[in-house]
Amino acid sequence: MAAGRLFGLGLGPGDPELVTLKALRLLREAAVVAYPAPAGGESFARGIVAAWLAPHQREIAIAFPMRPGPPPAAIYDRAAAEIAAELDAGRDVAFLCQGDPLFYGSFAPVLARLAPRYPALVVPGVSSLTACAAAAATPLVQRDACLTVIPATLPEDELARRLPADGAAAIVKLGRHAPKVARVLARRGLLDRALYVERATQAGERVARFAEIEPAGVPYFAMALIPGDRG
Amino acid sequence: MAAGRLFGLGLGPGDPELVTLKALRLLREAAVVAYPAPAGGESFARGIVAAWLAPHQREIAIAFPMRPGPPPAAIYDRAAAEIAAELDAGRDVAFLCQGDPLFYGSFAPVLARLAPRYPALVVPGVSSLTACAAAAATPLVQRDACLTVIPATLPEDELARRLPADGAAAIVKLGRHAPKVARVLARRGLLDRALYVERATQAGERVARFAEIEPAGVPYFAMALIPGDRG
Repeated sequence: MAAGRLFGLGLGPGDPELVTLKALRLLREAAVVAYPAPAGGESFARGIVAAWLAPHQREIAIAFPMRPGPPPAAIYDRAAAEIAAELDAGRDVAFLCQGDPLFYGSFAPVLARLAPRYPALVVPGVSSLTACAAAAATPLVQRDACLTVIPATLPEDELARRLPADGAAAIVKLGRHAPKVARVLARRGLLDRALYVERATQAGERVARFAEIEPAGVPYFAMALIPGDRG
Repeated sequence: MAAGRLFGLGLGPGDPELVTLKALRLLREAAVVAYPAPAGGESFARGIVAAWLAPHQREIAIAFPMRPGPPPAAIYDRAAAEIAAELDAGRDVAFLCQGDPLFYGSFAPVLARLAPRYPALVVPGVSSLTACAAAAATPLVQRDACLTVIPATLPEDELARRLPADGAAAIVKLGRHAPKVARVLARRGLLDRALYVERATQAGERVARFAEIEPAGVPYFAMALIPGDRG
């Protein structure tokens, strides 16, 4: 029997209408649907496409601990083994990814474990990066400008060092790191230029100047955008 | 009479199946469709959605000169005026964008001219950046790694300077700049790690090691990806 196929489906930033035709088609074709979920909570990726899931589709929820820091490798090992069992049985598995499957997120470690043995297809999705720029109706990067994407999880000095003097930047995964990011932006003289976008394309979307927000209660789905000064 | 709305529609990297449900809905709702086109040639953005255009939709082709360098501002002034006339008449105008509307491309200058006067809605799309990573089935950026996006149009020394020592990078808009990029990658010791992706998601898609390609003869729709060394 031929092995099933692994689909990494980018589902976009949250609005179900930002799913692509291709992701929707492959989602419906898959016998099995796998997704990351916080331990004991709802999966954000599953929520995007919940209306299209069918009762006959088997679901594999991959529970991630809620504590900060990288998840232990054992979680990915176990998820890969569970998905492999379905692929061995000839069933296609759709791995649901918020945003794009290979722009941060939990699909890459699963792909690394399974791609050597199984046919895999990655369907790119709308990333949170461009969704935030669209929500702010602000060009992310133009003409011959560069763009630097920096995770807010980095130490304060490294954040400051990696922020470019010119060009555009996005600081992703703000959450509890927002107060540190606010200090770095102030130190680098960028606080007045930076924008803040929270829950782009989702209910509760908010766009503001970064200088106006209260950095202590910022959710994980938030980003700072520093538009380039040339372009 | 209420003014029409301006939609900036991200249509993704080329495969019509990578259009989002939202872009498709608004495309069908718009009375007028505008798009950039090379002078005397076919519009790439229009080609993505050609099968969905209806005979009653008015089309505005914005002719761009084929020579290198930034297009003259007069082209955007004229395009904005033509679109404004439709909006004034109460008709919605969909501006078609390959990839994402605000990640490089020609929509930003049009938006800047029209957003102060008309209701505008930007629909993010799948960018060439994540489409190339998906084609290569290679993680673009993971965990706490940074990503730098650099246009190949920059001067050789600036390209070399902006390529990060660690972290991931993408060099976009290769085209006739590919020989220069090959020199920079060699100089920075990155030639063996760099991937090359041409026409991602389109007919003729090609993925190779950058070291294996012939840099003279590279099309505009090509990118170098340098996966990060941590993550």
